[in-house]
Amino acid sequence: MDLPEFSDIKKAHSRISERIHRTPVLTNRQVDSITGGQVFFKCENLQKVGAFKIRGASNAIFSLDDEEVRRGVATHSSGNHAQAVALSAKWRNIPAYIVMPENAPRVKVEAVQDYGAEITFCEPTQQAREEELERIVNLTGATFIHPYNDPRIVAGQGTAAVELLEQQPDLDMILVPVGGGGLISGTAIAVNEINAATEVIGTEPENADDAYLSMKTGKLVPVESPDTIADGLRTSLGELTFECLQKYVTTIVTVSEQEIVDAMKFIWERMKIIIEPSAAVPVAAVFGQQFNSTDKKIGIILSGGNVDLNHLPWI
Amino acid sequence: MDLPEFSDIKKAHSRISERIHRTPVLTNRQVDSITGGQVFFKCENLQKVGAFKIRGASNAIFSLDDEEVRRGVATHSSGNHAQAVALSAKWRNIPAYIVMPENAPRVKVEAVQDYGAEITFCEPTQQAREEELERIVNLTGATFIHPYNDPRIVAGQGTAAVELLEQQPDLDMILVPVGGGGLISGTAIAVNEINAATEVIGTEPENADDAYLSMKTGKLVPVESPDTIADGLRTSLGELTFECLQKYVTTIVTVSEQEIVDAMKFIWERMKIIIEPSAAVPVAAVFGQQFNSTDKKIGIILSGGNVDLNHLPWI
Repeated sequence: MDLPEFSDIKKAHSRISERIHRTPVLTNRQVDSITGGQVFFKCENLQKVGAFKIRGASNAIFSLDDEEVRRGVATHSSGNHAQAVALSAKWRNIPAYIVMPENAPRVKVEAVQDYGAEITFCEPTQQAREEELERIVNLTGATFIHPYNDPRIVAGQGTAAVELLEQQPDLDMILVPVGGGGLISGTAIAVNEINAATEVIGTEPENADDAYLSMKTGKLVPVESPDTIADGLRTSLGELTFECLQKYVTTIVTVSEQEIVDAMKFIWERMKIIIEPSAAVPVAAVFGQQFNSTDKKIGIILSGGNVDLNHLPWI
Repeated sequence: MDLPEFSDIKKAHSRISERIHRTPVLTNRQVDSITGGQVFFKCENLQKVGAFKIRGASNAIFSLDDEEVRRGVATHSSGNHAQAVALSAKWRNIPAYIVMPENAPRVKVEAVQDYGAEITFCEPTQQAREEELERIVNLTGATFIHPYNDPRIVAGQGTAAVELLEQQPDLDMILVPVGGGGLISGTAIAVNEINAATEVIGTEPENADDAYLSMKTGKLVPVESPDTIADGLRTSLGELTFECLQKYVTTIVTVSEQEIVDAMKFIWERMKIIIEPSAAVPVAAVFGQQFNSTDKKIGIILSGGNVDLNHLPWI
């Protein structure tokens, strides 16, 4: 499996751009005054399905050949990737089989159902999810759409950075959250081609710092069942995305759980947009001043906005 | 006091546009499928101070002559207008005297203080507010910046519709909330000039339906202390804004408190943006299908996003 190239990202963009939102880039005076720089927020929380995940999933699903299309797609996910696969499959009018843990939030189950996907519930363990997915793939011949360790997914996620650098070309750095690494990989490949002077900085919860440890030790160090509020970042890097980080990314910054909640509430209060805890991680990193932001132009990809509004971490 | 003309709105726009956000226009698939039309949300909740109010206040304050500038500005408000006057005065580097009721939410008091305005607290009655304001105006010579019954304010608020019709020209109708009537007046004047075929529809809480009653009876019918969650719409029309509605607006639609809360939560959940109850009123009106929205292109001005995140109406 090879890393995608910039040309793959460009192709992905022309494949998906009519179907997704070109999300706005927002700024905020108070954020700038805290950081001493200028921060440009690429609002993927305002994207379809409420997250950048639709970029990768739709690119993968619109890349399938006729035979694959006939058999449909499958994935296991309790989160944004499940919705992204379900909606993309609906757009392409093909079957989608989604394996979800039986304790998945009702609102996420309903969203996937709304898109017409077929849901199979399983025990809430990684092993049960993978076994159930394998059973379904064997039965249906559906193509497994991996959430991040797939060049088509990485290429799709890279389109967010392409748009951001069109909307705000001269950035000194771009901060993104790191879970499985699809977003940072696509971002790094795009940025390396468009403006190699722009630094790509990965951000993680301290409690899910597998990318930090993997980069430090030079080998994949998965973190098992990490305890973090940033539910989108509980997964660990895959081989493909780790290879990409080793090639292009020099800095991984970690933040505490309290910093994540504080940054999340700050963005809700001051910017009037809803971001999920995972999206607050790069915001917390720039507020924590672990690197020099003075007079810098800083892009942040706000990765998603899917939150249970009945259970907010500060209430 | 004369109604502003379209040329005043254009002048206002060139006066303020470098200082305010050109807020994005967002769309949502689910909203379109519910309404059967296409809805375009002009996101003034993402505006500076979190509300369209900065448009009118900054236009008024940047219209002052040198002598007025020297003496500063004053207003009474517990809401978004106070912040808008305070920030505009800060931009122009002049004193701002704000009378606030002593029970005003702490977060709003702090925001006004942050902008460097001088706050005077008073009993939480309309009479006490007006008396205290008069005392301060007599003492300082400051210019009273009325929240809506002022042609400069109306002209400033009209700039939101100018932008909306640049961003999405061919709208069949534009829905706005009606409190004191500044926003709908500016919108109606702008729309009448830019595209008279676009209908401007006012929306109100049933519990604060002074505009509905005033239009029906042909004379100003203020509503005293209305009990509505839409705190921005508790004020009644003024003479200037009523004159404008009589001239340009034919339809006022009212919605229930429950419809307001439901629409507010829907927009938070599906669009990932924070709107205050007042901004949910036109959304509730389009969901309530009190007029034919099928195949129509509908603009909605989301007026603001200032909400106490520790007290949400659905928790």
